[in-house]
Amino acid sequence: MQSYRFSRFGALDHLQRHDEAMPQPGRGEVLVRVRASSLNYRDLALLHGHYPMSWQDGLIPLSDGAGDIVALGEDCRRFAVGDRVCNAFFPEWFGGPFPLAQAARQYGSNLDGWLCQYKTVREEALVRVPDHLSYAEAAALPCAALTAWTALTGPKPLQAGDTVLVQGTGGVSLFALQLAKLMGAHVIATTSSADKAQRLRALGADEVIDYQATPDWGARARALTGGQGVDWVIEVGGQGTLEQSLAAIAAGGEIAVIGFLDQGGAALDFMRYFMSGATLRRIAVGHRDGLEAMLRAIGQHRLRPVIDRAFAFDQARAAFEHFDARRHFGKVVITH
Amino acid sequence: MQSYRFSRFGALDHLQRHDEAMPQPGRGEVLVRVRASSLNYRDLALLHGHYPMSWQDGLIPLSDGAGDIVALGEDCRRFAVGDRVCNAFFPEWFGGPFPLAQAARQYGSNLDGWLCQYKTVREEALVRVPDHLSYAEAAALPCAALTAWTALTGPKPLQAGDTVLVQGTGGVSLFALQLAKLMGAHVIATTSSADKAQRLRALGADEVIDYQATPDWGARARALTGGQGVDWVIEVGGQGTLEQSLAAIAAGGEIAVIGFLDQGGAALDFMRYFMSGATLRRIAVGHRDGLEAMLRAIGQHRLRPVIDRAFAFDQARAAFEHFDARRHFGKVVITH
Amino acid sequence: MQSYRFSRFGALDHLQRHDEAMPQPGRGEVLVRVRASSLNYRDLALLHGHYPMSWQDGLIPLSDGAGDIVALGEDCRRFAVGDRVCNAFFPEWFGGPFPLAQAARQYGSNLDGWLCQYKTVREEALVRVPDHLSYAEAAALPCAALTAWTALTGPKPLQAGDTVLVQGTGGVSLFALQLAKLMGAHVIATTSSADKAQRLRALGADEVIDYQATPDWGARARALTGGQGVDWVIEVGGQGTLEQSLAAIAAGGEIAVIGFLDQGGAALDFMRYFMSGATLRRIAVGHRDGLEAMLRAIGQHRLRPVIDRAFAFDQARAAFEHFDARRHFGKVVITH
Amino acid sequence: MQSYRFSRFGALDHLQRHDEAMPQPGRGEVLVRVRASSLNYRDLALLHGHYPMSWQDGLIPLSDGAGDIVALGEDCRRFAVGDRVCNAFFPEWFGGPFPLAQAARQYGSNLDGWLCQYKTVREEALVRVPDHLSYAEAAALPCAALTAWTALTGPKPLQAGDTVLVQGTGGVSLFALQLAKLMGAHVIATTSSADKAQRLRALGADEVIDYQATPDWGARARALTGGQGVDWVIEVGGQGTLEQSLAAIAAGGEIAVIGFLDQGGAALDFMRYFMSGATLRRIAVGHRDGLEAMLRAIGQHRLRPVIDRAFAFDQARAAFEHFDARRHFGKVVITH
Repeated sequence: MQSYRFSRFGALDHLQRHDEAMPQPGRGEVLVRVRASSLNYRDLALLHGHYPMSWQDGLIPLSDGAGDIVALGEDCRRFAVGDRVCNAFFPEWFGGPFPLAQAARQYGSNLDGWLCQYKTVREEALVRVPDHLSYAEAAALPCAALTAWTALTGPKPLQAGDTVLVQGTGGVSLFALQLAKLMGAHVIATTSSADKAQRLRALGADEVIDYQATPDWGARARALTGGQGVDWVIEVGGQGTLEQSLAAIAAGGEIAVIGFLDQGGAALDFMRYFMSGATLRRIAVGHRDGLEAMLRAIGQHRLRPVIDRAFAFDQARAAFEHFDARRHFGKVVITH
Repeated sequence: MQSYRFSRFGALDHLQRHDEAMPQPGRGEVLVRVRASSLNYRDLALLHGHYPMSWQDGLIPLSDGAGDIVALGEDCRRFAVGDRVCNAFFPEWFGGPFPLAQAARQYGSNLDGWLCQYKTVREEALVRVPDHLSYAEAAALPCAALTAWTALTGPKPLQAGDTVLVQGTGGVSLFALQLAKLMGAHVIATTSSADKAQRLRALGADEVIDYQATPDWGARARALTGGQGVDWVIEVGGQGTLEQSLAAIAAGGEIAVIGFLDQGGAALDFMRYFMSGATLRRIAVGHRDGLEAMLRAIGQHRLRPVIDRAFAFDQARAAFEHFDARRHFGKVVITH
Repeated sequence: MQSYRFSRFGALDHLQRHDEAMPQPGRGEVLVRVRASSLNYRDLALLHGHYPMSWQDGLIPLSDGAGDIVALGEDCRRFAVGDRVCNAFFPEWFGGPFPLAQAARQYGSNLDGWLCQYKTVREEALVRVPDHLSYAEAAALPCAALTAWTALTGPKPLQAGDTVLVQGTGGVSLFALQLAKLMGAHVIATTSSADKAQRLRALGADEVIDYQATPDWGARARALTGGQGVDWVIEVGGQGTLEQSLAAIAAGGEIAVIGFLDQGGAALDFMRYFMSGATLRRIAVGHRDGLEAMLRAIGQHRLRPVIDRAFAFDQARAAFEHFDARRHFGKVVITH
Repeated sequence: MQSYRFSRFGALDHLQRHDEAMPQPGRGEVLVRVRASSLNYRDLALLHGHYPMSWQDGLIPLSDGAGDIVALGEDCRRFAVGDRVCNAFFPEWFGGPFPLAQAARQYGSNLDGWLCQYKTVREEALVRVPDHLSYAEAAALPCAALTAWTALTGPKPLQAGDTVLVQGTGGVSLFALQLAKLMGAHVIATTSSADKAQRLRALGADEVIDYQATPDWGARARALTGGQGVDWVIEVGGQGTLEQSLAAIAAGGEIAVIGFLDQGGAALDFMRYFMSGATLRRIAVGHRDGLEAMLRAIGQHRLRPVIDRAFAFDQARAAFEHFDARRHFGKVVITH
């Protein structure tokens, strides 16, 4: 079977295709014919060598995959051959508080990931995919969609009538927009092009702010709520956007800190945070319970992930290049 | 100013129209020109003498009203003259656990209610009404809509993807249907006529069961969830319907016990409840915090209450008669 | 290795000791040298043939065990040889909502239980035991202690200052007493002997009611709260005690429905429930996340389970007989 | 009646004693004979002119008071003459989300405060005080104790077995220590003197770290949890201590951001926050529901606030001076 591996991170030239022996499922494991995988910002951070957590060389990249179960090891109960599945981002975080040991067990950085044709995994690390989704759409979910779901369903979950601010058109932001609308929220999105603004509205955004035309988009978002501030910010930019997010957020509102896309900007001003009255909650993707709850909602509403572009398995390098250009609207996927 | 009072409960003949002195707002109070009121099942229980809580004779009936603020007492801050308001069901339950003393402070049974043209109340007992609502629509909210909201936003609030079962076409049930859809739920409704079934679907019901054609509608509802059971039942019937609700509910699901409409049926079988694995939660309308949160959501979504029929103020008796026939679809209101 | 099996339920004569082949751990499994097990009311219900759920004959009984890990199968990560562990009641419920399939996967009724010397289990089905506990104490926890913990840590968890009513001196009730005290609650216990009352006070009970001297102990408990009612009832009796529990509970309080010990009493009166204003929540033991959280608290506070009596492995039949007499104060355990 | 007023902030010389007319309670108001008041850090920030929110000159200072009800205005229901009461920090925040308008309605900065002998307030702005507390002890609660309670009882409330880190020996920190112990937590305290360390242990601290001897006390606190990190930090220092708090906190743990005592230290490093995995939650004292829940717990446990020193009413200036020296252990109060 075919796979890709990064001999070492730092350049796409180190991403090589391999022929590998077909894996055999052990007790409690299943064999998955991987049909699609998807890219996330962390894959770029790994590629460019500024991933802030532990990693090792030589692994199969990508944290997200979807496919069919083609064989069962002994003593498997969750699935049957033919079931369509995608993976939980953390293979052994089932619910409850984050188990620290899982931080060092992430696909693509510490464990072989999903850019391959066949893969054996413990059945507990997989979940069933709703019927209406293609493999490419299912492969879009494990990291980005679950991150958005986890952000909106925390200890104080989103309540119908809340206002949510999403930033830009990456995977997490579009899932947050779609899921927040499904939960009864009012959504304000930011972008920099009229074309993308139109597509955001088509996905359900109630308001769109052009962050280039309106550099103080935080104040603009606050004004759109009658001065109260937004109840949620899905903060993917990190330090570069947090100042605007603090301007936008309501006292008692929650900034879900997800990304570190944007390296620029001043250091976080403590008093500015203090005066905002907001909660900053760091989102670490999420657990299998959350993934299953989200898939139930996605299935029921026949929600469709936004796929920016799908590349064939032998175009994996082009997929990385396209994603690295950071002009996508939604998820970049690879079909295997 | 004009009002109605029940000299004593027991028959509509005791509902008399009166001319009363215009009330004057004291410190912290406002004067409301009441423009509409609405009827709830408790008003019938009072009328017919089987209201299970404390009550007294001689009061102005009805727990729900809406109108304009026409004068402010000294030291008022929440409102200005001209603001459109409706009332909190309990005038002094602002949030947190139910204050036992409030059980004996309910409009229409222990305090003068809203079937009058002018009324003074503490400003803390009122909330602002969204612009898109008529007075009649606003008067539909204080008891029925808040009950539905409280049921769905408890300690374990409704999550997008949950399935909700609502019973019939009364005020609470229709609000529960509308609010649950707004929160991303799948809704199963029951009714007994094809016409009402069609109207339920138009309001968003995903499935409708004819409870006359399908007396074991609980099992039918369970089957519609693939055997898992529904996550919520908004139980308005009481003892007469609870057996079916227990057949429908999922292990870990929640039956919001609201009403006692239906006096028939066998006593509750303990082992049947035990085996259901469900939570029974008794809903006592709700507090002002909940009302304000609900109004925010209603305002944002421009949700419109379903008005079955509006009667003129001098037709108040006819309104009671119409409501007592129990054939309504939505709320019966009186415009003042 | 030695085990006991019920050839069929119905009488203790069907409980037979066996010599069995030593089990070998497969991939992802560990081999446990079981050092202790404990009895729960469900074991008596099975014995006497009135267990209300599915079961099969021929199994090793008992749902609770503790011991050492003596061998690891391939690809195990959670434990090392020598670790002291006890089991999760449901081997595959890790957190989140109850997975319906787990209802038919309970030790002693559907799966071989823990009354044996060696047992292989998936490592995911075990948790580490705090150092201060003996094996007998650890074996007391999986069903009874977790049930009490789950009852008190639900969607609206116990808050310091709440009042909790516990019934009698069985395992769940004593754990509820100990855990509620640790969480800052005021505890009212019921019993029928002065000796047990004294022991309940020694464990931390703030008030003890003699339910024989005070048959309307529900009203008595309410009076002890100044008329507000208790915030929690840990209801182990079922139908026979629920009427008193409804008399004791506060509006908005929670009755954790755990047991069905007491078959007598009238059927549940719907209006009595309705007027109580309480929540009835059915507790189904709990999941592994809850067990781990509880063990952390137990470890930190060096809380010691109350062991009524420990029997040797070859006295297993006597352990059942002793437990069946229903005069215990705390847990009945067997050391292997 | 006697009062103190700050003619303007900036120096204690501007704090002047006055003879004022006896206030008369209006409708819905009560007259309180104030028996004690207490100082909080915000009173120093106001005094020294670096209070970061709105304020005005000429007001009676201090946000916290306790006393007796000596007269009732018309239409009062919550209290009787003779009831012992203390105040809610925000007079009109009863529960639910923070009402933005309340930010400009704080005693001592925007409204006349409690450093006076008689005061009229709406009855809704007061709560009953447990019998075991002196007036001085009751006056210690409204700001500092409620802040600690709010921090520990948020959307994801403290769970027995959690570890809490408290900083120093100010009012909020000592209340957090006492309340966290009462809820079943493990508490790590920091201080700089052996004497204070001993007193912290006497109050229940499980571990005390000398932050002068151990400047990297964050790492030390983490080590005390076996490397997992503490579940809670009650952060009173602000920017100067946050770096250590981020070193101490567990992934998924919560830093309750309360104070801004310490102006020094580097700006908050975004990536350091990001990598911590923690939630930062800004605590704005709390609402009346929380105060009542806390008082119930305090009453039941007969918890005693730690009073550093009580000054007589005519020593008010000395009380400010003593508090400003920042060497207290617990609360500084004034008895009227």
